[in-house]
Amino acid sequence: MKSYTAINFGKKFDKFNEYWSPKVVAEMNDYQFKLAKVQGEFTWHTHSDTDEVFIVIEGVLDIVFRDGKVRLESGEMFVVPKGVEHMPVAEQECRIMLVEPKGTVNTGDTNSALTAQNDVWV
Amino acid sequence: MKSYTAINFGKKFDKFNEYWSPKVVAEMNDYQFKLAKVQGEFTWHTHSDTDEVFIVIEGVLDIVFRDGKVRLESGEMFVVPKGVEHMPVAEQECRIMLVEPKGTVNTGDTNSALTAQNDVWV
Repeated sequence: MKSYTAINFGKKFDKFNEYWSPKVVAEMNDYQFKLAKVQGEFTWHTHSDTDEVFIVIEGVLDIVFRDGKVRLESGEMFVVPKGVEHMPVAEQECRIMLVEPKGTVNTGDTNSALTAQNDVWV
Repeated sequence: MKSYTAINFGKKFDKFNEYWSPKVVAEMNDYQFKLAKVQGEFTWHTHSDTDEVFIVIEGVLDIVFRDGKVRLESGEMFVVPKGVEHMPVAEQECRIMLVEPKGTVNTGDTNSALTAQNDVWV
């Protein structure tokens, strides 16, 4: 009998240190699960063609909207609806999981120095 | 400024006690995020038209395949490819998250007393 290997978030996070540079850890149909370390302010951006899921694995993440914000702690998630401008902010280092369609760019429709290479697996 | 509300897994788990009865907590495009408490053996089944993601929030889950198995602990995930027969098993109560297309039935192609009502939110 084969012993299949679980995808362990902690071990995956040990493999990279860059902030705001999501790494793919799994694919389900045409969706990807990505882990990211984040700290500081990201850039305002919008995904015009998809919702985006944020799950906090460790730490605290604020997602700021033009009309308000949501604070996410470990064991919490939020779905940013498509077309809604948002800016993630983490005062301290925070570890998050993103779930979104394959091909989704981290800065959405915004051209930014923070735009990360897409589809990088870890 | 509005204060949006995070989806808190612990608070959601407090709202139900049935085993093997996934509750929807979020929707992203045409996919759903479901929480379930599980214990004991589920039924062998296959989802012939979609992959299925298991994430363990708390406890230990084995997913048994015809040719092997994978053990998932808290902070671990696995993607069961579409068409692959599987049976989840948890010796002790385990809390999991499932991610799959809206409309996915928990027992897949298998008719079973364990087939849960679909699309129940908590």
